[in-house]
Amino acid sequence: MAETAPLKVAVAGATGYTGAELLRLLLVHPKVRLTAVMASERSAGVPVGRLIPSLRGRLALTVEKVDAERLAAQADCVLLALPYGETHRVVSVLRRHGRRVVDLSSDYRLRNAAEFEAWYKTTHTDPEGLAEAVYGLPELYRKEIAATRLVANPGCYPVGALLAIVPLIKAGLGRPEGIVIDGKSGVTGAGSMSQKPDPMYLYAEQNENILAYSVGKHRHTPEIEQALSGIVGAPVQVTFTPHLIPANRGIFTTAYVPLARPASTADCLQVYREAYAGEPFVRVLDEGELPRTRAVVGSNLCDVTVVVDERNGRAICLSTLDNLGKGGAANAIQNLNIMHGWDERTGLDAPPVYP
Amino acid sequence: MAETAPLKVAVAGATGYTGAELLRLLLVHPKVRLTAVMASERSAGVPVGRLIPSLRGRLALTVEKVDAERLAAQADCVLLALPYGETHRVVSVLRRHGRRVVDLSSDYRLRNAAEFEAWYKTTHTDPEGLAEAVYGLPELYRKEIAATRLVANPGCYPVGALLAIVPLIKAGLGRPEGIVIDGKSGVTGAGSMSQKPDPMYLYAEQNENILAYSVGKHRHTPEIEQALSGIVGAPVQVTFTPHLIPANRGIFTTAYVPLARPASTADCLQVYREAYAGEPFVRVLDEGELPRTRAVVGSNLCDVTVVVDERNGRAICLSTLDNLGKGGAANAIQNLNIMHGWDERTGLDAPPVYP
Amino acid sequence: MAETAPLKVAVAGATGYTGAELLRLLLVHPKVRLTAVMASERSAGVPVGRLIPSLRGRLALTVEKVDAERLAAQADCVLLALPYGETHRVVSVLRRHGRRVVDLSSDYRLRNAAEFEAWYKTTHTDPEGLAEAVYGLPELYRKEIAATRLVANPGCYPVGALLAIVPLIKAGLGRPEGIVIDGKSGVTGAGSMSQKPDPMYLYAEQNENILAYSVGKHRHTPEIEQALSGIVGAPVQVTFTPHLIPANRGIFTTAYVPLARPASTADCLQVYREAYAGEPFVRVLDEGELPRTRAVVGSNLCDVTVVVDERNGRAICLSTLDNLGKGGAANAIQNLNIMHGWDERTGLDAPPVYP
Amino acid sequence: MAETAPLKVAVAGATGYTGAELLRLLLVHPKVRLTAVMASERSAGVPVGRLIPSLRGRLALTVEKVDAERLAAQADCVLLALPYGETHRVVSVLRRHGRRVVDLSSDYRLRNAAEFEAWYKTTHTDPEGLAEAVYGLPELYRKEIAATRLVANPGCYPVGALLAIVPLIKAGLGRPEGIVIDGKSGVTGAGSMSQKPDPMYLYAEQNENILAYSVGKHRHTPEIEQALSGIVGAPVQVTFTPHLIPANRGIFTTAYVPLARPASTADCLQVYREAYAGEPFVRVLDEGELPRTRAVVGSNLCDVTVVVDERNGRAICLSTLDNLGKGGAANAIQNLNIMHGWDERTGLDAPPVYP
Repeated sequence: MAETAPLKVAVAGATGYTGAELLRLLLVHPKVRLTAVMASERSAGVPVGRLIPSLRGRLALTVEKVDAERLAAQADCVLLALPYGETHRVVSVLRRHGRRVVDLSSDYRLRNAAEFEAWYKTTHTDPEGLAEAVYGLPELYRKEIAATRLVANPGCYPVGALLAIVPLIKAGLGRPEGIVIDGKSGVTGAGSMSQKPDPMYLYAEQNENILAYSVGKHRHTPEIEQALSGIVGAPVQVTFTPHLIPANRGIFTTAYVPLARPASTADCLQVYREAYAGEPFVRVLDEGELPRTRAVVGSNLCDVTVVVDERNGRAICLSTLDNLGKGGAANAIQNLNIMHGWDERTGLDAPPVYP
Repeated sequence: MAETAPLKVAVAGATGYTGAELLRLLLVHPKVRLTAVMASERSAGVPVGRLIPSLRGRLALTVEKVDAERLAAQADCVLLALPYGETHRVVSVLRRHGRRVVDLSSDYRLRNAAEFEAWYKTTHTDPEGLAEAVYGLPELYRKEIAATRLVANPGCYPVGALLAIVPLIKAGLGRPEGIVIDGKSGVTGAGSMSQKPDPMYLYAEQNENILAYSVGKHRHTPEIEQALSGIVGAPVQVTFTPHLIPANRGIFTTAYVPLARPASTADCLQVYREAYAGEPFVRVLDEGELPRTRAVVGSNLCDVTVVVDERNGRAICLSTLDNLGKGGAANAIQNLNIMHGWDERTGLDAPPVYP
Repeated sequence: MAETAPLKVAVAGATGYTGAELLRLLLVHPKVRLTAVMASERSAGVPVGRLIPSLRGRLALTVEKVDAERLAAQADCVLLALPYGETHRVVSVLRRHGRRVVDLSSDYRLRNAAEFEAWYKTTHTDPEGLAEAVYGLPELYRKEIAATRLVANPGCYPVGALLAIVPLIKAGLGRPEGIVIDGKSGVTGAGSMSQKPDPMYLYAEQNENILAYSVGKHRHTPEIEQALSGIVGAPVQVTFTPHLIPANRGIFTTAYVPLARPASTADCLQVYREAYAGEPFVRVLDEGELPRTRAVVGSNLCDVTVVVDERNGRAICLSTLDNLGKGGAANAIQNLNIMHGWDERTGLDAPPVYP
Repeated sequence: MAETAPLKVAVAGATGYTGAELLRLLLVHPKVRLTAVMASERSAGVPVGRLIPSLRGRLALTVEKVDAERLAAQADCVLLALPYGETHRVVSVLRRHGRRVVDLSSDYRLRNAAEFEAWYKTTHTDPEGLAEAVYGLPELYRKEIAATRLVANPGCYPVGALLAIVPLIKAGLGRPEGIVIDGKSGVTGAGSMSQKPDPMYLYAEQNENILAYSVGKHRHTPEIEQALSGIVGAPVQVTFTPHLIPANRGIFTTAYVPLARPASTADCLQVYREAYAGEPFVRVLDEGELPRTRAVVGSNLCDVTVVVDERNGRAICLSTLDNLGKGGAANAIQNLNIMHGWDERTGLDAPPVYP
């Protein structure tokens, strides 16, 4: 029986932590072969194993300067972890060549160009791509992901928030008005990149520190609202506050959702268990258990639970994920698997790294 | 002019982190002299500088077993950082002897014995003490603290929550219904003590981990509600969720308060500036600045600010403090200063330790 | 062609971090099937996924109380991560049944029972096992490991020290007199276990702290000396000092070896490159590069390099490894692979987790 | 009796962590008044409390651009925490005006200009200043410090190394040949500054990481050698390796010194106790105790001890300090106190911050 040739995959944006995580995962993916690694001009010409010392000896490629035409020539499928601006240009070239793309930037997540422009303060130059793009949260849009060539991998906070909230809203147990989402993220999730140092991300600044940022205006807010609005069939608005926590990886989401009617914790958990039955990467905890980021770091898992505050008629929805895992690179691999008709767990079966 | 003799002060409960912080602060307080240090039987007989290596060479006292009569004999004023149970018994003896007491346990914080018993699942054995005790948050109850002999030092979370919320409620800008309080605490604030190891607090469990605990039922909830109810003049209920963050010290509070009427961030900040004018330990940040625990750790300071989420008619009230500082030992010293008619800043003027 | 049935493997000592890491690795090992997980009585009856939340949903086994006969009945090969005392008894039963064993305790590492008793202050009750056991450092004893049924997996510090020093000694470039080894370990390497809390390992004690322990008398010292003495053919003694560093995983070894004759850094590195040519898990860095634990954590890799201090005629030999990886569980899997004639990389090909 | 007017003190180099620590300490020093705070052009015009949020509300000064003439006009005594290059120029102006100076840079530490130039690869432009400068380690050069106007505050590693080693060498118990010094430092000690981000110092790079740097060539080496050579009366060379540890503050020094003759741990400790009798900031531990950085962080203390490795005839000398404390800013204040004839403890009596 003939073996299928591996899929040729390229990664652009390898100098950030998301790019490094993509490489780590793709190196043990049994159905793909890495054919090109691209990044900004500064890193071009450097062997991958020197740029990312953990990969030393594992990948005989040298970093190339980002070049959309060359990406299209080298790969069947491209994973993009580029900053805003470069992404548009690259995607439109890849689309022209018919390549499959998983974009980990924020450029194709909002379907409405006007909303994109309101939150990102810039015009969108690829409206056709926007029309084709599917929001890459498999637990909500699995079928659409399987059918598209352009997946917009979600932001790390929205993955945690949506997986924590959506079952309650879909079941009509949670009211879509008055939702408050409080996110706590490790430092790699908040934009810090090894090649773009910002004083805010220095060790001595983040260590032993807790802070909030982008209060009332974080750009992941409209992503969350877009998905919830789609489910409810009417505009939904949420208050979302992100925080930075002294840890490398992990997002803990605490979402406060008013209950539409009295319900016990057990009632709500039953809704979650049904909603996520069969999902390979979402674990609903037992009543009495609480999630911790420790239990999912290094994997594509998301642990969720809900506790009802009966005194106040409010559900406290909790989730944990690895911002570079289910909140980033691993979720992108899950999308890649779905786009190619493979078992979603392919290449993603390593358990979390504990402790 | 005759110098006043220093006040004789004793600390009971020296093996926990709160007790150690009390000693650190009292050692440089110009108006007190430490006369006794007590703890559980296990530590009795150990020199303080061996129990707490940071204090080696600074205090020629040996830890004694907790003994209420001896405390009364040795000190004019006693600071108690004991666990529940011992506290009641000790306080009643000290009250009988007319000693001034700042109690850092939770035994005298709730004025209503029934509420205490509902949350703490035990009966209160000192109702007279309860009637006399004043909730030791100087920014709210300064006058009452000056007039009492028994101060119940507040829990660490309530200090952060109340200082963040109260001005908005008092001004009628914030609605007391629908308040959500999300607290993030360093590990020393969550009950970990060097002599009472719990697997949950082991380094490898907490490091690189984010988690919630006591969801929907943390015992600091009724403290917050009691103070808000007193201000509003009607029962107030809040949803409060505490989280554990991998850092030694620091609490970051994010409180979500529905606005009673449209107001800008600037409007709200003006209310805070007026409320805290003259307060020596509360700093209201400028619009555009956000607090970080880093800037208050090691001190009695609390930084507060507010950001209005105009899309949702909600104020996001933020505060930072050191759980062992304004959330614990330093606030207790502030209470001691007030009780003795001294400048509140006495012994508390060292700036935060950064970084 | 008939598929070979997977090897039945059991793990005893699952409540420590080493045991948890064994399970994490074995779950993705393509040639083994986990048939039993044992631990102390306290954990017996608990599903593995509740004891180790990261493994929730991955392993349908329940923890059993350690039972040597049952281990022999359930498994072809047993990995032991038990504390001293239980190990002897279990190994002798397994040996009687002809089972293959990789023992991660320290009971079978020292070949000389008298030396064992001098360092461990207890008598050795299984001298026959001792005679059969092979010290499980594949880079030194690959052939012996392949031929034995009982492998004594090395201590975490000795792996780092020996891989850093041995090539220099073997080549005659390093003098075996006057060697100083300074080890720095993350907290999981120093004996901390989730079920055996010691105040020393509490978060607030280890965080933001650096300390030395067992100075001049750490029990890994004779392991290092035994291996070096075997290579030199004469007794070798070293000074070894372990330190505890606020990180979960990782050991950094700095070994100071007097040079037998003048040699440049390049000369020495050439010796290392030749010594480790073909080794799948040892990476010799290029001149000018320095190791960091970050680049190996989560894997079975050991990065090594050497810098010559020409002013003092001394080689500074550096290595990094993950104490739970090459310094523990992953190295045990490598031994298991060798014992069964498999490619040594089987189940160990996931790159390090960075960052 | 007339009160003495406070000494006018200025700090130049306030944007680094050492500068911030100087301000923190000077703000509670009872005998000085801060009259000017200077830094690079980028920070000029910013209120100190905005540049260093922990000092918000404590200091009504605005950062000025470094200006040597203005420093001389504004202050009686100047503390310099400037990078190389600016320092020479500023010191020569201050010397001309007769101002007292404590320089925390490395420019005046090496007495021999040729040696300075060999290690720093640049010429020294102020040989007269060099001739006047005193190496500011009070425990060795107290009398000289009292008599000079220019003190070169020592490097953080040399303080830890010299306080750990010198008593043994002075007593003739330690041999000056074959000394190995292994230093482990928190991140603020290794040059990271909030305004000069380097990718190496990013949170996600340093967190959960252990590494060595400047192996065999760190510029603190000649400082250590210069002091030891002065004591021995002959050239002394040492091997020194610095390491970076994931913590904000703290240096742990492990120094290996060959013994000149057999001696017990108790013998050696007796030598240390005599050497440091009366020293206000050096604590010699009891036999059996080991130092930890936790016990000195935030203070000017240095804990020292020694353990004899009798098997190898080697003393293992251990010390801990806060790199910003005894290894930097606090030691500079001690020097300032000595230069002005004050009690050395003035302004430095706050105990360490634990935990």
